[in-house]
Amino acid sequence: MNLKKIQRAIISVSDKTNLKIILPILKKYKIEIISSGGSFKKIKSMNYNCIEVSDYTGFAEMLDGRVKTLHPKIHAGILNIRKNYKHKKDLKKRNIKNIDLVIVDLYPFEKKLEEKKKFQNLIEYIDIGGPALIRSAAKNFNDVTVISNIADYPQLVTELKNNNGAASFKFRKFMSSKAFSLTAYYDSVISNWLNLEAQIKFPDKKTIHGKLKENLRYGENPHQQGSLYMGEGNLELKKLHGKKLSFNNYNDIYAALEIINSFNKNPSTVIVKHANPCGVSCEKNQLSSFQCALECDPLSAFGGVVAVNSVVTKKMAIELNKIFFEIILSKGFKKDALRILKKRKNIILIDYSKLNLSYKNHYQFLGSAFLAQDPNDILLNRKLKIVSKKKPSAKQITSLKFAFNICKFVKSNAIVLANNKSTIGIGSGQPSRLDSCKIATNKALEFVPEKIKNSVAASDAFFPFPDGIEQLTEAGIEAIIQPGGSINDKRIIKAANNAGVVMAFAGIRHFKH
Amino acid sequence: MNLKKIQRAIISVSDKTNLKIILPILKKYKIEIISSGGSFKKIKSMNYNCIEVSDYTGFAEMLDGRVKTLHPKIHAGILNIRKNYKHKKDLKKRNIKNIDLVIVDLYPFEKKLEEKKKFQNLIEYIDIGGPALIRSAAKNFNDVTVISNIADYPQLVTELKNNNGAASFKFRKFMSSKAFSLTAYYDSVISNWLNLEAQIKFPDKKTIHGKLKENLRYGENPHQQGSLYMGEGNLELKKLHGKKLSFNNYNDIYAALEIINSFNKNPSTVIVKHANPCGVSCEKNQLSSFQCALECDPLSAFGGVVAVNSVVTKKMAIELNKIFFEIILSKGFKKDALRILKKRKNIILIDYSKLNLSYKNHYQFLGSAFLAQDPNDILLNRKLKIVSKKKPSAKQITSLKFAFNICKFVKSNAIVLANNKSTIGIGSGQPSRLDSCKIATNKALEFVPEKIKNSVAASDAFFPFPDGIEQLTEAGIEAIIQPGGSINDKRIIKAANNAGVVMAFAGIRHFKH
Repeated sequence: MNLKKIQRAIISVSDKTNLKIILPILKKYKIEIISSGGSFKKIKSMNYNCIEVSDYTGFAEMLDGRVKTLHPKIHAGILNIRKNYKHKKDLKKRNIKNIDLVIVDLYPFEKKLEEKKKFQNLIEYIDIGGPALIRSAAKNFNDVTVISNIADYPQLVTELKNNNGAASFKFRKFMSSKAFSLTAYYDSVISNWLNLEAQIKFPDKKTIHGKLKENLRYGENPHQQGSLYMGEGNLELKKLHGKKLSFNNYNDIYAALEIINSFNKNPSTVIVKHANPCGVSCEKNQLSSFQCALECDPLSAFGGVVAVNSVVTKKMAIELNKIFFEIILSKGFKKDALRILKKRKNIILIDYSKLNLSYKNHYQFLGSAFLAQDPNDILLNRKLKIVSKKKPSAKQITSLKFAFNICKFVKSNAIVLANNKSTIGIGSGQPSRLDSCKIATNKALEFVPEKIKNSVAASDAFFPFPDGIEQLTEAGIEAIIQPGGSINDKRIIKAANNAGVVMAFAGIRHFKH
Repeated sequence: MNLKKIQRAIISVSDKTNLKIILPILKKYKIEIISSGGSFKKIKSMNYNCIEVSDYTGFAEMLDGRVKTLHPKIHAGILNIRKNYKHKKDLKKRNIKNIDLVIVDLYPFEKKLEEKKKFQNLIEYIDIGGPALIRSAAKNFNDVTVISNIADYPQLVTELKNNNGAASFKFRKFMSSKAFSLTAYYDSVISNWLNLEAQIKFPDKKTIHGKLKENLRYGENPHQQGSLYMGEGNLELKKLHGKKLSFNNYNDIYAALEIINSFNKNPSTVIVKHANPCGVSCEKNQLSSFQCALECDPLSAFGGVVAVNSVVTKKMAIELNKIFFEIILSKGFKKDALRILKKRKNIILIDYSKLNLSYKNHYQFLGSAFLAQDPNDILLNRKLKIVSKKKPSAKQITSLKFAFNICKFVKSNAIVLANNKSTIGIGSGQPSRLDSCKIATNKALEFVPEKIKNSVAASDAFFPFPDGIEQLTEAGIEAIIQPGGSINDKRIIKAANNAGVVMAFAGIRHFKH
């Protein structure tokens, strides 16, 4: 166990709640307390003995508290190696006492950042003395116990009780790990904020941070352990019914919400399976948008995730209930709708009306290396460049823009067929663009052949050869949008003209891997 | 500009090289230097004036240097707000002087970690005083300049020269951002190491870190900026020929290397397009493995990434040159092979023989939130569970294992058809398993119909319905492997028995999204 008796503690906590949990136990084991500023006052007011840091060091607190504990008598008391004879002599000579327990709660920088305090104000919430204390103690965990989170008070109490006022090696090492996780996290929050302020998008040294939200039953597969972490703020998903969300649930939910979040007020539905949309529609009302999204690929929709950007009505609940979906996401549920849907035990119902999806970077991991990039936050809104002889109707233009914007959310190579503002065939995740064309047209021919007339196609990247165009036009597609920019553009445009269809260039590429 | 004249600097550097860059300029502008330990000795040995920290603070360095600069006279000199009258009075009263420039180089913890030093030894490389100095100065960047990287010395010299011994607000803020990026990174390295040691897989506060390796031309799409970061170590790719690698190149290269890295010594080839394999083969020699991988989908292979786990010979180079590939990865190239391949300007040649792909976690980002999980590092090696009446031949068993292991690397839903140890059809990225079956069988029927006899199929997850089985067996597949575990397993096995084919359960799932 390698127990270390605790004789002296330093307490410097920004959040002074719950000291009542630890003070009696420190007293019981006759642990001397050194403290400063507000923590000192609080402990004294609770009628516990406490030595003020300045009395101990002989150096009064200064600069409105900016410098309190940064003193060699404190840090040498923490950092000395107890079994080192020279260290022991050093300490004795200068009348420095061992500090065996360090309890620190840092200034709440992140909380103040979330409260959107002003720059100058935030600077004051960068703790200097606290991290120094924590790091000294965490480094010297072989002799010292560090508590860096007030939530760990009960664990400390148990540890001291179990070991008659001492702490075990395992406990000290565990708390040291927690301490360095905290100081890393704390500075990562500051660093990401300052880099944003200083407009440094890709700093030489980059840290990404997250708070553990929940441990999942397992990861992407049962033999992998997995957890969910939150970065800036929370996703703000309110689960109203159903079992615990899984790794793949979260992945699919995010895919669905990213799409539905890209639409404005029109009633819209997105159905996702394996992180790819298999039906998307923006229609006049909730029910018709759902039906249009569903008929795009009713087979794949089975067991999928459905997101609608409105409050689910009773009528809609009855329709939803006819098919097995794993998750329904909406901006709320009418009471009677909830009653109907809750009858299914295996369904998960989530209200996402307070959704928080904002973020500044996207990361793709290649083992321990990673690619960092801007999120793809462009949607096609500008005037289209028409490169074909045939010009599109106003309805076709709307439809082309809709289809192209859906491409952004489909794994590459992506081909999206749309009629008005509903998908009628989605080809995803193929190494060849021609194959994605085939998949998309086969879907449309299988499930909604009557909708192919007056339909359009969108491609996430340019067509390298005319074969894809031929595949689409032979199936009856009348207008095609793509980024343009291939060395074969002339041949591609010619193929569109030969087929008598519209071709538009978007000037944007939407690869997603 | 808000220039701040620098009167006094503290220098505490672990790496003492290149001090000659800054010392003359500090002298020129009559900047007083305070220093300690080795830095002090080095500066004196270079014949520059310097005050020892202990002389300044009146507190001798102690604990073998564990406590040197952690003194209120130092930190108050850095942290005081220059325009604050009370702070000024505080300083004067205690005879503390302003420190306007902090130059620190931290103990090289990460370097020692990479050198695999022992635990106790590594602890000694955790810098305590250095981060405290850096953080004090970075917090007070409104008055103080911090240099936290010796590579920034030339920038400091330019800044001082341009401003006659002063530093601008912009420079101070920029250096402050860099400083917090460094302290966050430094503690993230320590924290991840300690968490691993303490077996904390998912800590409450998690940080992920990387070093900027290169700024890329753009991200996944031209309207996104992108960069590559390295985590533990480096990928160790040696580019021998061709243009700069792009975001998507790196993504594809990683996909290809993950697969090829999963094979043992047999000569193998992997062809990747849009992060999905479109041909994989392990055969008797380099050339035949390449040919088998290529014929699986020669259309998709166009412009793809090829990885081979051997040294490219002249014969192979001639074959490779017949098709347009964007990237060739190998364990080296014979001289004459290199000469042949280099004739193409648009080809990128990479030697990956020192590849470093080890990592402990996989991260999937959902905006600023992220899913953390174990990497999927299981390959199927154990005895198969045969659930069909028909039993597999030894050759089929080898082929079933090969196909199932390839599934791991194909985006879900994944279906992989294989003949011996070569893929003959890959269905990827579909919301429905049936569609992946169709894609895979259509590929085989189109490109290698003669190889379908004696072939097998693997599915990354269980079949929910018998339709997929029917699709595969109708195309001529003779053995199927899948994880098993559906409530419809009985019906699935019956379908296999009805078709007279082998069915094996792997007991492992290989979702990849």
